[in-house]
This record gives sequence, C-alpha cells and structure tokens, in this order.
Amino acid sequence: MECGKEVHDRSVFPVGERITNENFIGPVWLEILVSSDTIFNCPIYNVTFEPGTRNNWHKHPGGQILLVTNGNGYYQEEGKPVQTLKTGDVISIHPDVKHWHGATPDSWFTHLAISTNPQKGEAQWLEPVPDDEYHNVR
Amino acid sequence: MECGKEVHDRSVFPVGERITNENFIGPVWLEILVSSDTIFNCPIYNVTFEPGTRNNWHKHPGGQILLVTNGNGYYQEEGKPVQTLKTGDVISIHPDVKHWHGATPDSWFTHLAISTNPQKGEAQWLEPVPDDEYHNVR
Repeated sequence: MECGKEVHDRSVFPVGERITNENFIGPVWLEILVSSDTIFNCPIYNVTFEPGTRNNWHKHPGGQILLVTNGNGYYQEEGKPVQTLKTGDVISIHPDVKHWHGATPDSWFTHLAISTNPQKGEAQWLEPVPDDEYHNVR
Repeated sequence: MECGKEVHDRSVFPVGERITNENFIGPVWLEILVSSDTIFNCPIYNVTFEPGTRNNWHKHPGGQILLVTNGNGYYQEEGKPVQTLKTGDVISIHPDVKHWHGATPDSWFTHLAISTNPQKGEAQWLEPVPDDEYHNVR
C-alpha cells in the first residue's frame, strides 16, 4: 500500500505487514524484531498505527516498555489522564496495569514494544476505547 | 559540544552525556532510557559512538540486543568476520559470546542496547580492538 510505503520511508525499523486484529480499532502494521524465546526472554515488536488506530484496554502480567520512534500517539492508564507521546518518548508499563495506546486521529504512530518478563504470561485483552472517549482527548 | 548537538538533531532518543570509559576507545554518549530494576528486568541504554569509537571485546552472561537507530557501525563476534550495521538493523548477542561493536571510522553510530536476563550478572570486559585491526576492516 502506498501509505505503508510512505510511513516505511520515515521509520527507523521495518514496518512489516498490515494486519487487522480484534484487539485493535483500525489497521496496524507489525514486524517482529526479536521473537519470543527462552534465550533472550525479550520479545520486541515494531508496531505502526495508522492515524486513528488504537488498541483495546489490556494488561501485561510481566509489564511492557514502549519506545516511540515516529509520529504522535496517546497512552492512558486506567484512572489517569491521556498522555500524548512523540518521537523519543519511553513508557514503562508496570505489570498488571490496565492501559491502552495508539495513534492520534491525524498522525501515524510507531513504537517498539518490548514484552518484559515474558515468562509471566500473555497479555489480557479487555474492552475497546469508545469513539467518543478517543475523539474527545484533549 | 556542537558535534553532540548535531547528532542529537538526527537521533531518535536522547543522546545523554559524553563520557570516556576505560572499556571504550574514543568518546561515547550515554543516556539511560530504562534503569536496572527488578520490576522490568530490562535495562535499556541509548549509546552514541563518535566516529572511530568502539568498545573493547566483552561478554554478557545474560546476552544483549542492539537496535541501530542512526549511522553506520561495526559488530564482530570472536572468530567471525566484522559485520557492518546501519539504521534499522537488530543484533541479538547470545549469552557469553565474545564480541565488540562501535562506529565506523567516518560515521556517528547510535544503537539502543538492551541487557537481557540482567539477573545473570554484569558484562565481562576484555582486551581492546587494536587500531590496525579496526582500520583494516573491509
């Protein structure tokens, strides 16, 4: 896709394949940079959100680290205000903290996502972020 | 330093402080993005090598992952040829593999360095890479 090529040209790491996923509202591009294994215990994904795309609320039993490499995005933990994210930002998400992240409505957004302590188990996926909440972030 | 400001402008993550270190030949810039702790077990450093700078041979008991965000560099494992690295490359260094990395002689070079399985202990630092070997890489 042409828009995929454009974001690839601006991105640091490979953008990968465009996928749709029941845990996301909107399309997302995914490249596995480091696979899940028992040698490194450090799966790393490059995740690119098209404008308006965000994931559902979820939790990681071992935590997660996000490293923003391109664009503008949102990050929210349950009970807290939405944070805006930009290139160079780093977010450390504690184990079992309910949160969501994604692009702003008008920007592509790319982050590395590192699954920390992956031996503690898979993400627990929860409800979507409603359109009215997403579009009323300020 | 003006050259530090220039590389900062091209870099994704903060460049941090310019340091000299007995384990490096040449100056290096270091920013700690994620500290060592027992919650995430995932220390992440942003390391920027001035042209010509490289580290000494070393080993990590838990392994290390390098994610190249800017410039051109070298990576070598003991007994293997030198690999040239560029933006977007990912290197997974197995535990206890003797290796070194750094900038090429004429390029700044920046990578994220993730210490995997950090509970297995600190890096073991070894001998420097001699000038004649470094400058004869082809």
